[in-house]
Amino acid sequence: MDVRRAAAESGLMTAEELDITSLDQDAVSILARIKRKELTAVQVVMAFGKRAAIAHQLLCCLSDFFLEDALVRAKELDDFYAETGRLVGPLHGKTKLYSIVASSFVFIDIFCTMPVPVINPSYFLELYRKIRLTSPCLQFYPVFYVKTNLPQCIMHLETYSFWGQVLNPCNTKLTPGGSSGGCSALVAFGGSPVSIGSDIGGSIRSPANACGIWTLKPTTSRVPKGMICTAQPGADSILSTFGPLTRSLRDIDLWFSVVLGGKPWLNEYNLAPIPWEIPVSPRWSGSNGLMRIGVMWHDGVVLPQPPIRRALKTLVDVLRQDPVKFEIVDYPPFKHFEAGELAHELYFVDGGAYVRARAAATGEPVLPLTEWVMTLPSVKNHTIHELWELNLRREALRAEYLQHYNAQNVDVILCPAGAGPAPVLGTCKYWGYTNVWNFVDYPAAVFPTGLTSNPAIDVQEGVPETYMSEADRYNSGCYDPEMFAGAPLCLQLVSRRFADEIVVKALQEISKVLPLGEK
Amino acid sequence: MDVRRAAAESGLMTAEELDITSLDQDAVSILARIKRKELTAVQVVMAFGKRAAIAHQLLCCLSDFFLEDALVRAKELDDFYAETGRLVGPLHGKTKLYSIVASSFVFIDIFCTMPVPVINPSYFLELYRKIRLTSPCLQFYPVFYVKTNLPQCIMHLETYSFWGQVLNPCNTKLTPGGSSGGCSALVAFGGSPVSIGSDIGGSIRSPANACGIWTLKPTTSRVPKGMICTAQPGADSILSTFGPLTRSLRDIDLWFSVVLGGKPWLNEYNLAPIPWEIPVSPRWSGSNGLMRIGVMWHDGVVLPQPPIRRALKTLVDVLRQDPVKFEIVDYPPFKHFEAGELAHELYFVDGGAYVRARAAATGEPVLPLTEWVMTLPSVKNHTIHELWELNLRREALRAEYLQHYNAQNVDVILCPAGAGPAPVLGTCKYWGYTNVWNFVDYPAAVFPTGLTSNPAIDVQEGVPETYMSEADRYNSGCYDPEMFAGAPLCLQLVSRRFADEIVVKALQEISKVLPLGEK
Repeated sequence: MDVRRAAAESGLMTAEELDITSLDQDAVSILARIKRKELTAVQVVMAFGKRAAIAHQLLCCLSDFFLEDALVRAKELDDFYAETGRLVGPLHGKTKLYSIVASSFVFIDIFCTMPVPVINPSYFLELYRKIRLTSPCLQFYPVFYVKTNLPQCIMHLETYSFWGQVLNPCNTKLTPGGSSGGCSALVAFGGSPVSIGSDIGGSIRSPANACGIWTLKPTTSRVPKGMICTAQPGADSILSTFGPLTRSLRDIDLWFSVVLGGKPWLNEYNLAPIPWEIPVSPRWSGSNGLMRIGVMWHDGVVLPQPPIRRALKTLVDVLRQDPVKFEIVDYPPFKHFEAGELAHELYFVDGGAYVRARAAATGEPVLPLTEWVMTLPSVKNHTIHELWELNLRREALRAEYLQHYNAQNVDVILCPAGAGPAPVLGTCKYWGYTNVWNFVDYPAAVFPTGLTSNPAIDVQEGVPETYMSEADRYNSGCYDPEMFAGAPLCLQLVSRRFADEIVVKALQEISKVLPLGEK
Repeated sequence: MDVRRAAAESGLMTAEELDITSLDQDAVSILARIKRKELTAVQVVMAFGKRAAIAHQLLCCLSDFFLEDALVRAKELDDFYAETGRLVGPLHGKTKLYSIVASSFVFIDIFCTMPVPVINPSYFLELYRKIRLTSPCLQFYPVFYVKTNLPQCIMHLETYSFWGQVLNPCNTKLTPGGSSGGCSALVAFGGSPVSIGSDIGGSIRSPANACGIWTLKPTTSRVPKGMICTAQPGADSILSTFGPLTRSLRDIDLWFSVVLGGKPWLNEYNLAPIPWEIPVSPRWSGSNGLMRIGVMWHDGVVLPQPPIRRALKTLVDVLRQDPVKFEIVDYPPFKHFEAGELAHELYFVDGGAYVRARAAATGEPVLPLTEWVMTLPSVKNHTIHELWELNLRREALRAEYLQHYNAQNVDVILCPAGAGPAPVLGTCKYWGYTNVWNFVDYPAAVFPTGLTSNPAIDVQEGVPETYMSEADRYNSGCYDPEMFAGAPLCLQLVSRRFADEIVVKALQEISKVLPLGEK
């Protein structure tokens, strides 16, 4: 069931509130309206607060709600603007640009990642109240008003915790993705224009893919993480990174401009001192200076379900109609199975012992997808020397992958963002379309094509003679045209390490043909 | 005994060879002479080869010598230059600048770091022959002609292996430092103008400090490491990095310009895409735009021996005479004891088991300094979960250190490069002046002040009432004015992570007052 019209139909929101939170608004447009004094921060926070509350009733997307605090803060911002004519911001009184931009973050929802299982809510609350004080965005004066739900141990590409199971607002039989599925459900429902999550295996891209919104997982060491703790504190074989979930591409640019505009590398240890700068005229790698796009139709492990194959083919066909702009070649996958498996092994180098111990200590039951991810064939409890061996394998495979990438001479890779649209609840068991890019730490954006899953078109072409893998067989079996009806169809755009701005620049060009119409 | 005149006195070298290898020549000057056709590559390689052979007889600084190969390669370079009028280089035929610069590397000696103990020389040779083919400098057409000696397991700040013990050419009772003591002895003797080593705890800075030459340990992720293996392959809690050992500051700039000019980040996975650019007019942090130097007189753990205290005070006094250029303040050390201890613990998270197993397998005896470094109180055999705890402590301390550094508002820290000049052979047991900068991964240069240890001046001022630590008591007891006579006195200049060029720029300014004359 598509519940996205529920806010409008509920009778609980005024016409103005519906307008503020309308899905065609983004952070940039709302910010402009605040700046022009057409809206106040209080109005904006109240509108999103109400819509978030409705979202939660339907989707279980929140784990806390503190609108009163948020309204107090919003009032302060309005008063400051009224008195001084300036919006509050990180460079308050110094640089107008940042002051203006900053206030767009009045309506960002709070995020955090939790070392769950934790059954004691007061500990949980205490922890993220701390996080509110150390959030990477705090310096830009956001107003926090909700906390979104997350899956147990943050290691599902769905969102099911002891707070409940989050549903996809586009189709409630489907997952909104995970681990930031609370974020994506909220944003896609209209409860927030921008949300923030972290990604170690797909945790912001799977939600964007499932709910039809935008995201960029940047290269690690670009975005500050504050004192945010991770699922297994101190485990650093594969690093996570933060990124925004947005309703528009320009909001992605806005978010990175603000976050990196503050030169966070001066104050946070692990960051590379690289400013956010989208090149005006990049030197593309194709002949005659064309942007060269490598299309990875599948990863050699799992064939994407029919709607995703259609979306990719449709977009490529449209891009091919503009040979003045794009040079399009096939991108062959390279050891994606090995990279994905090794990533899984490196997530749980203790074989999941830490997570199990936390579950045992609290009495919280280990959920099926938690059990699944900790009992994959590659996951083992390792010694220090085995960990060193794994690290060596990781480094060797990363080096090999880079050679392969260079040999293709592409600017970006266009590929699926998952093995299908949003999976049916409880069935998401293939991470390879996202976690390989964590493994090699390449920046990867997910964007909506404008297409949706259509049972009349997206039929399974019979059972193939052979499958590429067991995961392929499983994924194929999970597809049911009727079940997926209306699911948004997204794709992924990837580039080399640290080429984050190239991904955005390329997506700016590609998105000129979006949204694609239904055929 | 100072043996640096031995080459001249040996009668084995011609006047021209002595001139080419003279200690007042550096890579830049020799390069210019090749470019002007005053010298050929063959002449240069032959001269350095002969001087390296003499060095080895006196200092045990080499572990292999292959001049024949080198002369063949040098002849090819000369022929190419004669035929084309261009020097061979990484951008051969494309960019003149790099072509020219590259040939300066005809006379770089080969380096590598070894997973020793390994008693089988053929394995050893095979390994570094591979390294010759994958060296980070190979693309710049160096001619390799020697391999320098290294200490067992590469984890001494001296250089004693089953190839023998390397002596300091300035004073053979002292160590040339380590682990790159073969390099520093060779360069200080005149056997090579530039050498390359890796540094995880002081392994290029201790040798520079001991032998009175120049180095810069850059931020990790700036310099390519090729496929060079480390002492404990796969252990990555503290990362090593490469840097040059040179006879001049401009050779440091030359080396980084060449190595980073090739954009190695496009081909090596772990590098940040930051070009080498020394700012012309940096914004210094002092009042009126003065460069603000924080002087760390000692690290709060070990008081440097008298000659180093004198060198630091002398330089600071001279710099203070130029208040138009420098703003000088004290830099208080911050938890250097904790950082140094934690670094030692993180070097051997298996408690040294890997190194011991290698020793047992080969029958090679574990040398005293190897035993010492693996049995420090903090070194333990850890589980995966204990490693995670250590990683968390590391991250927390790095974050705290950055806060402390920022609070001082300095551009650079001027401090000792060791607890004394070159230690007496077998006595070097304090790493804190170098390995803390590995722990926080701050770039750190070592430079000669021009002063030398003088028994008439550098007397111990009696026994102090209390010592700062056991290491302080030990270090104080190691000092003997007569023993250290003539040892070069160096200092260290440090800045924040990724501010490598700021260190060089600041050193360009500071070095205008060098060399300091003896008082």
